[in-house]
Amino acid sequence: MRWRILYFMRVVQKFGGTSVADAERIRHVAGQVAGRVGAGDEVVVVVSAMGNRTDELIDLALEVSPDPDPRELDQLLATGEHMSAALLAMALHAMEQEAVGLTGSQAGIYSRASHGSGRIQRIDADRIEEELRAGRIPIVAGFQGVTEEADYVTLGRGASDLTAVALGVALGADRCETYKDVEGVYTADPRIVPAARRLADVHYEEMLEMATQGSQVMHNRAVEVAATNELPILVASSMVDGPGTLIHGGSEMEERNRVRGVVDDHDIAKVTLRHVPDRRGIAAQIFEPLAEAGVSVDTIVQNASERNLTDLTFTLARGDLRRAAGLMDDICEAIGADGYTADTNLGKVSIVGAGIQTEPGYAARMFRALADAEVNIDLITTSEIRITCIVHEDHMGQAVNALHTAFGLDDPDRV
Amino acid sequence: MRWRILYFMRVVQKFGGTSVADAERIRHVAGQVAGRVGAGDEVVVVVSAMGNRTDELIDLALEVSPDPDPRELDQLLATGEHMSAALLAMALHAMEQEAVGLTGSQAGIYSRASHGSGRIQRIDADRIEEELRAGRIPIVAGFQGVTEEADYVTLGRGASDLTAVALGVALGADRCETYKDVEGVYTADPRIVPAARRLADVHYEEMLEMATQGSQVMHNRAVEVAATNELPILVASSMVDGPGTLIHGGSEMEERNRVRGVVDDHDIAKVTLRHVPDRRGIAAQIFEPLAEAGVSVDTIVQNASERNLTDLTFTLARGDLRRAAGLMDDICEAIGADGYTADTNLGKVSIVGAGIQTEPGYAARMFRALADAEVNIDLITTSEIRITCIVHEDHMGQAVNALHTAFGLDDPDRV
Repeated sequence: MRWRILYFMRVVQKFGGTSVADAERIRHVAGQVAGRVGAGDEVVVVVSAMGNRTDELIDLALEVSPDPDPRELDQLLATGEHMSAALLAMALHAMEQEAVGLTGSQAGIYSRASHGSGRIQRIDADRIEEELRAGRIPIVAGFQGVTEEADYVTLGRGASDLTAVALGVALGADRCETYKDVEGVYTADPRIVPAARRLADVHYEEMLEMATQGSQVMHNRAVEVAATNELPILVASSMVDGPGTLIHGGSEMEERNRVRGVVDDHDIAKVTLRHVPDRRGIAAQIFEPLAEAGVSVDTIVQNASERNLTDLTFTLARGDLRRAAGLMDDICEAIGADGYTADTNLGKVSIVGAGIQTEPGYAARMFRALADAEVNIDLITTSEIRITCIVHEDHMGQAVNALHTAFGLDDPDRV
Repeated sequence: MRWRILYFMRVVQKFGGTSVADAERIRHVAGQVAGRVGAGDEVVVVVSAMGNRTDELIDLALEVSPDPDPRELDQLLATGEHMSAALLAMALHAMEQEAVGLTGSQAGIYSRASHGSGRIQRIDADRIEEELRAGRIPIVAGFQGVTEEADYVTLGRGASDLTAVALGVALGADRCETYKDVEGVYTADPRIVPAARRLADVHYEEMLEMATQGSQVMHNRAVEVAATNELPILVASSMVDGPGTLIHGGSEMEERNRVRGVVDDHDIAKVTLRHVPDRRGIAAQIFEPLAEAGVSVDTIVQNASERNLTDLTFTLARGDLRRAAGLMDDICEAIGADGYTADTNLGKVSIVGAGIQTEPGYAARMFRALADAEVNIDLITTSEIRITCIVHEDHMGQAVNALHTAFGLDDPDRV
């Protein structure tokens, strides 16, 4: 009697909306999944809604009600992913591959009832494990969980990434693979920087900064959860075969010490409060009403105080500006500021790389590169692995390209 | 201290696909429901999928797979009603009326896993009762139940009627109201018989015969369940205000003794087996393979035997003919019949009324009326409250109109 040891991987594969946009693409994805299972791996799939389906459903809701009830909107939006899961399972059946489409409810994904922006609370993976044991590929509807009362809660735009990572953690998967309409994580947005290059790998923290600073490649909460649980994520194309980018927590981090990517974000507005009295509690008086109105503030900068009066500036997403502006007059009156100005013609450009903040000279090189490219800097903020400048929108292209060159990212041997 | 006793009705209202076809109609339905609640009644709503949504989903499934897996098709189709439920709940919220959209799963409707043709097994109405106590209108997705494993099972085309009636029974409702694109149950199809009149009321058994014999107004299993549990059903228009038709089990039944309606069905095909040896077990040899192939046979007629050879004829839905024909050669060989013929140019016309079979003369009057209208009769079958003739398709209009007149249904005072 002889033995053979079989090595296989347990993997969660996630396919985004573009990858399942129509019947043909769904059949293509089914072929990919079936191939992977045929190669011996154990696969769980997470799908997004088809193409623009989520937007179509939102439009339909707005036809019915100007301000759709959040619980009912979630019940409606959840159907987008239910459809994709059922259709992909059908396509796999048509290839003689056993599969089973599961709603977020059937897959045991539980969330608190914060409709439209739920967070995954726990995953009861019994059903998925049972399907795997029975030799069926579980196809899970992304973007959603249910409350203990079985009401649907959606997890925010792009959150199917989060479903995939959370399932990967719950199932003890070896890795999570997200297939998108890009070939991986790039040193900059290739639509802006022609010399942009795919990164073979990137550290969780670098990816998190990139996601937070405007990269659309991965949902930032998905990266957070992966980092906390040390689950590697592969980002690859669902259209083209290729190695993609592996997001992980490799040990070579410490020595890396260089800029890994330039990230741009055009969805920025700025509000400046003029002549704010510089006294204790003033920030709370400004930001509490904004938070209560659901306005998420990004960067806050307070200039040095002059005769106990200061200018305070914050940035926010452009879509939140109207709501914020509706509160600003009251806020100015309450705190005794002179007034406020709002500016939407701005963009945010960041360099990201582990260790760049502890190593001197990166900030200076960044400012020099921008000055040489004749880009004025409006605001500066930094984190441990990131330096961000806010510049005029019209200068964003120059700024991103100049930084990409200045930090050696154009060079294929350095990436 | 004084007391006032408030009388109110607990009612299940069901709105079909045409009634919720678009945002405008959904808002109209919301207005109707809110009005009813405002008048003091306790209302639970059941909705179908919007307009042609179910057919669109089936088309999408067929694009993905030529033969969609039945479980996955049910998971897909269930989303049609989920959407309607969420949208109607939103529309009610927009009218400041608390409401909650519920999937079949959330509403506690359990079914066995006979995908595409499930039967409701039990209803756990706790969630619905809880919502009613909290002052919210439960809006339940029709047409679906779930297995104990929470997999969706659809209940067959038109089965949202069944959901409504079953919920009515489970909730101890005073009655069930189904709102459709017709103003009630008619003495005949008004598109064929201009003199057709709305019936103010109709008995369960009469309605059941009408539904089984081709009337599209009510799903026959819905009528069965209502009859067994003595739940009255009102059929009325969702577009026009009007009294509708009450389906019930009134005590005046015995004395009625007259024709209540003429029903036509164009979805008929006929298969005749020629020279079938007349021996025991022959019927089983013919109909077992058909049943196994999922072919539902309607009427079976066996002519008198002549020298131990008989002709055997059965009717079936036209859509099932291709599947049946694929089996007929084998069946003929197995039983030693000469061969078979198939005919699709047929229609079925029935007169329905409690007591007509026990009272002599109805059959004779029917045959006379058809003969006078120059309609040849192909086959005859009867039940306790029905007489059915199968005639050539081209003669259907004449046949239905002739019978409508012959049995006094043109006369407004008799209906």
